[in-house]
Amino acid sequence: MRVIDLYSDTKTTPTDTMRAAMARAEVGDEQADEDPTTRALCDRVSAELGYPSAVFMPSGTMCNLVATLVHTRPGDELIADAESHICTTEAAGAAAIAGAAVNPIRTADGVFTADECRAAIRAPGRTAPRSAMVCIEQTTNFSGGAIWPLDTLRQVRDVALDAGLRTHIDGARLLNASCATGIAPRTYTEGWDSAWIDFTKGLGCPVGAVLCGSESFVRDAWVWKYRLGGAMRQSGVLAAAALHALDHHVERLADDHANARLLVERLEAEPYFSFSAVKPATNLILFSLRGLSVDADQFVRHATQAGVRIRALPNGKLRATTHLGVTTDDIACAAAILIATAWRYAA
Amino acid sequence: MRVIDLYSDTKTTPTDTMRAAMARAEVGDEQADEDPTTRALCDRVSAELGYPSAVFMPSGTMCNLVATLVHTRPGDELIADAESHICTTEAAGAAAIAGAAVNPIRTADGVFTADECRAAIRAPGRTAPRSAMVCIEQTTNFSGGAIWPLDTLRQVRDVALDAGLRTHIDGARLLNASCATGIAPRTYTEGWDSAWIDFTKGLGCPVGAVLCGSESFVRDAWVWKYRLGGAMRQSGVLAAAALHALDHHVERLADDHANARLLVERLEAEPYFSFSAVKPATNLILFSLRGLSVDADQFVRHATQAGVRIRALPNGKLRATTHLGVTTDDIACAAAILIATAWRYAA
Amino acid sequence: MRVIDLYSDTKTTPTDTMRAAMARAEVGDEQADEDPTTRALCDRVSAELGYPSAVFMPSGTMCNLVATLVHTRPGDELIADAESHICTTEAAGAAAIAGAAVNPIRTADGVFTADECRAAIRAPGRTAPRSAMVCIEQTTNFSGGAIWPLDTLRQVRDVALDAGLRTHIDGARLLNASCATGIAPRTYTEGWDSAWIDFTKGLGCPVGAVLCGSESFVRDAWVWKYRLGGAMRQSGVLAAAALHALDHHVERLADDHANARLLVERLEAEPYFSFSAVKPATNLILFSLRGLSVDADQFVRHATQAGVRIRALPNGKLRATTHLGVTTDDIACAAAILIATAWRYAA
Amino acid sequence: MRVIDLYSDTKTTPTDTMRAAMARAEVGDEQADEDPTTRALCDRVSAELGYPSAVFMPSGTMCNLVATLVHTRPGDELIADAESHICTTEAAGAAAIAGAAVNPIRTADGVFTADECRAAIRAPGRTAPRSAMVCIEQTTNFSGGAIWPLDTLRQVRDVALDAGLRTHIDGARLLNASCATGIAPRTYTEGWDSAWIDFTKGLGCPVGAVLCGSESFVRDAWVWKYRLGGAMRQSGVLAAAALHALDHHVERLADDHANARLLVERLEAEPYFSFSAVKPATNLILFSLRGLSVDADQFVRHATQAGVRIRALPNGKLRATTHLGVTTDDIACAAAILIATAWRYAA
Repeated sequence: MRVIDLYSDTKTTPTDTMRAAMARAEVGDEQADEDPTTRALCDRVSAELGYPSAVFMPSGTMCNLVATLVHTRPGDELIADAESHICTTEAAGAAAIAGAAVNPIRTADGVFTADECRAAIRAPGRTAPRSAMVCIEQTTNFSGGAIWPLDTLRQVRDVALDAGLRTHIDGARLLNASCATGIAPRTYTEGWDSAWIDFTKGLGCPVGAVLCGSESFVRDAWVWKYRLGGAMRQSGVLAAAALHALDHHVERLADDHANARLLVERLEAEPYFSFSAVKPATNLILFSLRGLSVDADQFVRHATQAGVRIRALPNGKLRATTHLGVTTDDIACAAAILIATAWRYAA
Repeated sequence: MRVIDLYSDTKTTPTDTMRAAMARAEVGDEQADEDPTTRALCDRVSAELGYPSAVFMPSGTMCNLVATLVHTRPGDELIADAESHICTTEAAGAAAIAGAAVNPIRTADGVFTADECRAAIRAPGRTAPRSAMVCIEQTTNFSGGAIWPLDTLRQVRDVALDAGLRTHIDGARLLNASCATGIAPRTYTEGWDSAWIDFTKGLGCPVGAVLCGSESFVRDAWVWKYRLGGAMRQSGVLAAAALHALDHHVERLADDHANARLLVERLEAEPYFSFSAVKPATNLILFSLRGLSVDADQFVRHATQAGVRIRALPNGKLRATTHLGVTTDDIACAAAILIATAWRYAA
Repeated sequence: MRVIDLYSDTKTTPTDTMRAAMARAEVGDEQADEDPTTRALCDRVSAELGYPSAVFMPSGTMCNLVATLVHTRPGDELIADAESHICTTEAAGAAAIAGAAVNPIRTADGVFTADECRAAIRAPGRTAPRSAMVCIEQTTNFSGGAIWPLDTLRQVRDVALDAGLRTHIDGARLLNASCATGIAPRTYTEGWDSAWIDFTKGLGCPVGAVLCGSESFVRDAWVWKYRLGGAMRQSGVLAAAALHALDHHVERLADDHANARLLVERLEAEPYFSFSAVKPATNLILFSLRGLSVDADQFVRHATQAGVRIRALPNGKLRATTHLGVTTDDIACAAAILIATAWRYAA
Repeated sequence: MRVIDLYSDTKTTPTDTMRAAMARAEVGDEQADEDPTTRALCDRVSAELGYPSAVFMPSGTMCNLVATLVHTRPGDELIADAESHICTTEAAGAAAIAGAAVNPIRTADGVFTADECRAAIRAPGRTAPRSAMVCIEQTTNFSGGAIWPLDTLRQVRDVALDAGLRTHIDGARLLNASCATGIAPRTYTEGWDSAWIDFTKGLGCPVGAVLCGSESFVRDAWVWKYRLGGAMRQSGVLAAAALHALDHHVERLADDHANARLLVERLEAEPYFSFSAVKPATNLILFSLRGLSVDADQFVRHATQAGVRIRALPNGKLRATTHLGVTTDDIACAAAILIATAWRYAA
């Protein structure tokens, strides 16, 4: 039996046309900046995000880590939402490798205000951690794909800049935000010191992310990428997939968002699923169970056996994700399975 | 004009009898474990706190840092109150030097519950920081000298041990807690992997703290003490002061607590000073201003000019501290000065 | 004009059949251990090298770094040849990220003896770095592709094990050694705690290396791989290339070695090229210039313009590399160009 | 039986007049820069060494570590003699805490040339460690107290400055060098970015060293001193000892040197003691044994039982040290004991 995989948008498989593009890729030694396809990708992404320069990375996690390494020194502190990827899902790399502490802001949906940011910036002194960097996640991940409103984004940025902090956007799903709002990626990233987008997840590529910033930022980022072991050789085979995705997989993110809305509509009609106010802003759906005799982990196990894979988060909520590997028909089917599972285990 | 210094309990001056004890100290090369007075001090403190072994340190900050270095590996996470010394006042040394992230718990008075601790421990996995250590501060510093109740302390410890975490007590003012409650220091520290007490602050010594733990913990702590540059030579001159303080300055902590109560009583009678529920559990007094035309920083400046030095905390509150450098008469005088300053700047 | 690229064995391009294998690859989410092709590759390499477990990495540099992170703690010291990759060409990642010092042994050809290793191991103590790991490079890189003799390898390993050190083989060109000597890879790696082979370089793949060790080593390695940002998604497209290379590109390493010998023979017949005793043990050729009016950097520039790209090393020597991107005819042509360049600039 | 302790110059005991100075010291909270005696000491040392600013430290090891932390970033490399304190006797703190690699130069006596320094500086690039700092030790410790000649010192400094490296003098025994040559300390340190002197060892104080540099260097050094746990409270009690030593214990270093020469003369007349060319430039004496049936460790044990404590170094040599705790009569006696021990164990 096929399982409909809504666990994560990282579970897609490259399409045949994407694979064909990879097989045709012109390549060179990326570590020496000699891979023409990787260079073309970096040029294109830096232009779309409005930065002078960019560097290809094996993962978004390395983008966040390298940005932290470049923007901070050991003993500095970065400000981020308490549930953001950099706080919860990077194995404490910021502390372990960059020596940077994290000052987490607790929010309802992953979006904090300029006032909250200002309050988190510590007064300078010999004994306090030095506030050095603000990191935001567009869209929020474990807070359900909420979109940072442009105004909030700019106000937070200005508070950070006024206090001398570096500013960084984890844009793992930045294109989802742009697709949903019609606001261009470069409008979101304007004035931020660095930003990256991911090509796995919604864009359906096998490997890779691109990190953008100033010339000097990217020069330093390259040293850290190399030192971490992230420099590759003929990475053009991967960059070709990313270029293909930019051409063919961006507009269709709207389908994922429509599918997410469909799933919410179906589930919301039942008494067992409770949604936060944010609901499905984009392709991530966050909900709680109510009135069942099973907990989140047990529900996930039963649903998987029934044919739908979703994810129980550490905070007790459930997350489903739509992506280019699932169709509208899949969603209708998945909704039915989840509903049936809930009925079966009603308290 | 003499300024009555309530800024911190670190502003004391060694007494003449303490200095005489220092001048008489038998000494040796401490770095090679050959200083007899330092060894005597470590033996005495480890016995009083109920540990097999102990090591002398130049500061309490180094005690917290070394405990973190021994109890964690880079990428681990420690749990502590968000306002505790290790979170706010050690220049992010845990991240910078130990590579350890901090998962802060926000509390009213620096004391968190076993449930809050349990909720902060992350589920094991490849991507989450590894919860590795719990650190509590007895008494709390920037939360106003509140005393961790013995039951809470034990419940938090048990939650941590069950989850495989190491447990550490920052006992900068542990003897204040014991003096106030009559509970022996070793009762508080029972079952915790490591703990330390400070000899500056309330005990009135110029330099030093003693960190206790198992034989193996102390062996590792020694390597880090040396690596950090904390190994000294004829430290017996400092340890002699600490031994003198254990003999002569412990019981008198009750005077500091009485003085703190006196100051609160005087200020509380006026409309301009607002106290939290915790009030003066020990020798730290935390309060806010109300109905004044000046803010906390300005009030501190005016009070200092008038002859009383207190401290404006980053969170907007004011902190006063009693210690062996201030008498009951000083406190009466200080209260009058603070009250007069408030009246002068009433809105 | 086409330039014959002998600069590095990393300058190859995936063949069409390799690309076809990549396009066919069955894939999954590697970060969650769900990529079947990557798992098949890890199983095959761990079997060939004689280890219980293995993990796929984006680069050999990350293999060395992760091994250091798992085998050492901050303040430990690793022993390696002074010209080895980990000492000279990993941007000090061992110190920067693992906090490990390097105790370099100076050798003629990258191979040190058991006695030299024993002398480099420090006596235990509180103040000396703790000797924790030995790293050797098979074949040596900047020492000219010399092969560690099996006896030496075993003696060094035994000295290290006796002293309680972990042992690690940087096997970037381990298959070259096996091809040249007929000794199986698993015979070389027998008894070493960890080892890796690279799939770029001689094997002609675009990206990837596989690091092997015990189950527990690989479990810890996975955490660090993830923390460093080296975890990928559908890495099966890369692993498929590596599996193809294991089937089709291993035996042909003998051609590279024959080509290297050919180049040496041609150059040796001229007065301007001076070879060390090691000469071309495998596919790396190291030589010096003599009797020319140009230095190594200038010679490289002139040779490149004439159609052959070789590399000037920091130590003043020149390095040429044979690989699957150059044929015997290319080598004959390259020799002629290098000789002509030398004649043109004879002093 | 009293043992004459020539093991190390750290085995002295503060004199009664020094203790009296300590007991009289005016003190304040050093961590807040409020200790007048510590400030007076820093002012005096920075003036004598020719720097704008200085900071008091609990040890020389912390001076070297903090200088490394300020002068480098993780991934940088420092150049030092392979037997220097920072390479062999600081528990790899540079790597563990600053993330700095060490590029050791092997020398006969701890003094390297400008050419050797130039050769150790790596060409800039993405993959090599970044050469960032040169550290020299005046006088050399485990190389027998040799004095860096002023010309060599200046040439090494100029090579480093030309290549953009920071320069640092570990001046643990700088005053010994000045005493022996008549060259002022500030002449030795001229143009070096940072330097420190130790007050334990030859100067006979219990605890402390002073690190000097520019205003900005010292500002950054303070942050690291605090973060490492090296900030103290009423450190004036220690600084008073240091000021006393500057007044009373500097000129008498000549007595230590004379005593060292005496010891060498006595031992040299016997067949069993072999001295390097450097001999006793200052207060450290390095020698080997020959023609005995015991090794260095055994000889040390026998000599200690006979009443003289000296040190067997990891390199197999023996080191004796003269200091203010041993008189000329002690030296005559020690020589006799060592000679008798040698005769007893002649092969």
